[in-house]
Amino acid sequence: MTLFARNQWYVVAYAAEVGEELLGRTVLGEPVVLYRSEQDGRVVALADRCVHRRFPLSESRREGDTIVCGYHGFRYDRGGACLSVPGQSRVPRTARVAAYPVVEQDSLVWIWVGDPAAADTSWVPRAPHLVDPAMTTVCGMEPIEADYGLLVDNLLDLSHETYLHGGYIGTPEVAATPITTEVDEEAGVVRVSRHMSDAECPPFYARSTGIEGRITRLQDIEYFAPCLYLLHSRISPAGRQEPVFRTEITYAITPSAPGKVYDFWAVSRDFALGDEEVTAFLRDFNHTVVIQDVNALNLLQRALDSEPTAYQELSINIDTGALAARRILARLAGAGADRDRVA
Amino acid sequence: MTLFARNQWYVVAYAAEVGEELLGRTVLGEPVVLYRSEQDGRVVALADRCVHRRFPLSESRREGDTIVCGYHGFRYDRGGACLSVPGQSRVPRTARVAAYPVVEQDSLVWIWVGDPAAADTSWVPRAPHLVDPAMTTVCGMEPIEADYGLLVDNLLDLSHETYLHGGYIGTPEVAATPITTEVDEEAGVVRVSRHMSDAECPPFYARSTGIEGRITRLQDIEYFAPCLYLLHSRISPAGRQEPVFRTEITYAITPSAPGKVYDFWAVSRDFALGDEEVTAFLRDFNHTVVIQDVNALNLLQRALDSEPTAYQELSINIDTGALAARRILARLAGAGADRDRVA
Amino acid sequence: MTLFARNQWYVVAYAAEVGEELLGRTVLGEPVVLYRSEQDGRVVALADRCVHRRFPLSESRREGDTIVCGYHGFRYDRGGACLSVPGQSRVPRTARVAAYPVVEQDSLVWIWVGDPAAADTSWVPRAPHLVDPAMTTVCGMEPIEADYGLLVDNLLDLSHETYLHGGYIGTPEVAATPITTEVDEEAGVVRVSRHMSDAECPPFYARSTGIEGRITRLQDIEYFAPCLYLLHSRISPAGRQEPVFRTEITYAITPSAPGKVYDFWAVSRDFALGDEEVTAFLRDFNHTVVIQDVNALNLLQRALDSEPTAYQELSINIDTGALAARRILARLAGAGADRDRVA
Repeated sequence: MTLFARNQWYVVAYAAEVGEELLGRTVLGEPVVLYRSEQDGRVVALADRCVHRRFPLSESRREGDTIVCGYHGFRYDRGGACLSVPGQSRVPRTARVAAYPVVEQDSLVWIWVGDPAAADTSWVPRAPHLVDPAMTTVCGMEPIEADYGLLVDNLLDLSHETYLHGGYIGTPEVAATPITTEVDEEAGVVRVSRHMSDAECPPFYARSTGIEGRITRLQDIEYFAPCLYLLHSRISPAGRQEPVFRTEITYAITPSAPGKVYDFWAVSRDFALGDEEVTAFLRDFNHTVVIQDVNALNLLQRALDSEPTAYQELSINIDTGALAARRILARLAGAGADRDRVA
Repeated sequence: MTLFARNQWYVVAYAAEVGEELLGRTVLGEPVVLYRSEQDGRVVALADRCVHRRFPLSESRREGDTIVCGYHGFRYDRGGACLSVPGQSRVPRTARVAAYPVVEQDSLVWIWVGDPAAADTSWVPRAPHLVDPAMTTVCGMEPIEADYGLLVDNLLDLSHETYLHGGYIGTPEVAATPITTEVDEEAGVVRVSRHMSDAECPPFYARSTGIEGRITRLQDIEYFAPCLYLLHSRISPAGRQEPVFRTEITYAITPSAPGKVYDFWAVSRDFALGDEEVTAFLRDFNHTVVIQDVNALNLLQRALDSEPTAYQELSINIDTGALAARRILARLAGAGADRDRVA
Repeated sequence: MTLFARNQWYVVAYAAEVGEELLGRTVLGEPVVLYRSEQDGRVVALADRCVHRRFPLSESRREGDTIVCGYHGFRYDRGGACLSVPGQSRVPRTARVAAYPVVEQDSLVWIWVGDPAAADTSWVPRAPHLVDPAMTTVCGMEPIEADYGLLVDNLLDLSHETYLHGGYIGTPEVAATPITTEVDEEAGVVRVSRHMSDAECPPFYARSTGIEGRITRLQDIEYFAPCLYLLHSRISPAGRQEPVFRTEITYAITPSAPGKVYDFWAVSRDFALGDEEVTAFLRDFNHTVVIQDVNALNLLQRALDSEPTAYQELSINIDTGALAARRILARLAGAGADRDRVA
């Protein structure tokens, strides 16, 4: 299993998911309950276990800006302090649950479950295109029963589009075209580029842009380890400078627990902005693509679970980005990476 | 997990459940098969594994007062002795399964799976109201996928009625009213009382007694560790001496296996005795209340299963009875209890 | 759990199951993908994990006589050699998956997952009646969630027919009649015979042969450890020399993984050869009998899984064949057998 890097910001929810209702999520094995304050509209994130008998607060009731535990009624404020307990007026001094730092930005809610003293809100990665009025965005989230490292592998090597997503976003040129990889080890950023100058146009782009015939297709990945993944995609008719159709594909990769990961995905486009039909098409189509990944990674994890402990992999050029990502993740988790080799 | 106290009597079934059909239950991890003898009407309880290849006898056939193993036909009498085996006339001397001491009393079947030499039938706890002709009883059983200690905790702290069973049996006064607790460590009995002199009448009592308006509500718990729990409930219109509506709520808490418990429940009333409508209402209503507990404890156990090993709890006054029960259970199981503190 | 004997031939599929589609099976814990070559019609069996990231090849695509991994497109030939990889022209020298020796014979596909140097195709056990034009065969396969040793136990002691399969193939005489057992330890063959000269005719034979009244029934088992089990059955009207109805019942017992076994079964008869009604009857009826075994062994395995580690069995004469089989399996697996005793 890929180790967890604790002192990092992770996406815990879309801002639009957090409102009146209590929302339960688990990040790096920490159960979290989320809601939006009536008073100031801010997102509150507390440890999702009552201090009394560990009942999940997310299965409880909200009253105003407090949570009342659904089992015995311990009441907590936005900071996690317990305000009242049943059967006595004195509230024990130690009666509080952790409140996690959160940042709401770019339509995402980021959380820090590591050492609170190290939480620096200026480090939160940016994805401003998600709220850019010059773009239209569709998005969703799928939980996967797999090590989050398998999703990082998946996204950093897009040659799988040709095989796993053939007929959707993959064409023969994706797998056939070599990549260039740049790694900023210190910043923890991996960049992988694949430029196809004369490629088949997959249905994903043909139906959304209206292009007929072959295309120039540029895929430029930026992975800000551990959580944020951006794929800058530019499409234009082959041999022409314009029009250029720009799509920003965003993933947030949030380890939920060992062997479980949240796959947040969004597709932002700078074309067909008011077009509901294109919006519905891209939402459905990309959801299908994500489900293809979900099914493949669920299957792969089950296959790996039955492997003897030190199973072998064989890495090639296309894996350069993913291997760099693994090294960075191991460093961020405070451990060395020694399982990768390129054949 | 709460340790098992082996040398104790446990409820394995209602007497009415044991008849011609073979009934399989598991008590403290011991699989048991039960049936009622044709010859003398007594309940027979044998180890539920054939001595030959461990096939469950409860999945087998009964012939008269013998069980014939469903796999190869080993035949056992009421005492667990093997009477015949296939393909040979000689029956091996060691061919027998354990027969457990049982006592049928107060509509319950009690079993002793511990050291047979220590089984004293005069120790079997009493619940005579279950068969009192001056009362009407409804009852049921639900298996729960939780440590039996969680059910003990649940029943010894009724402040949860206000939150988990609000709109059924809970009102604000239950959680708000302090308790008094008496512990007889030697006898292994915990008594918890909560007397409410001016309380809202919950639907459970309003609809069964016909009382309109506020009530005096007395809750007197007696827990005879490890298995029998009695809640003596008395209701009367607030400020009046009569009428008094008496309800005896019985639970038998039988650990089935680690992380599994049988929740036997019964409600006996001394009013509306011939009233089928009240009977049906109380059966359905209390079943709903029990299912609320079942769901909460299943959820809580799953939450605890994902905790790090030495998770913290915070106990307050309402937990006094439950903490005493834990100490007694630990002593009965032959082990010290060192995980509880009151904040 | 019964240990696996690795250097042995096992049935992995019926020949008729292997065609154009990729078929995934697991033998002794080794995942295997099977298909039939377009070029020469032979069965190909490869390790079912891509050398790159361990994706199951059986969840991939076939192109001609190659498999193209469904994740990133690594392409393999019939010998397991990787022919191409994405994004580069050079194929790493170590890019190959294991190809397993297979033999197609008697309508069965046999595989060898042990040391390839030891695979001797002349050792493959024979079951020529399965393709004998003078017989008609019905067959099927059921996976069982049980140690394969439990299926060996089951088949070597047919006294269970009386109890588990009463009303189908069992009658009182099967359990009542003693067996004779011959063991060829060196060859790894166990022979168990039971000859009934005046027995009830079970529905299985009454409805297929048309015999009315009692029968002579001969059951002669040959078990070629570890995989092939033959039951030579001959039925004739009691007290008469003819007609003799011959039925060959074949089982192939293939351990899939620890606690999992494939139960291949076939019934071949030398009577009512062209009779579709008899064929349909025997197929349905024997399938029902197999499912009775499947259910019993699934249940038994779950019961054993909850036993303390060194649970006791009690063996009698009927177990002589099964105990000999266990000894042989332990020897073939390269380990001693010390858990069996006859009481």
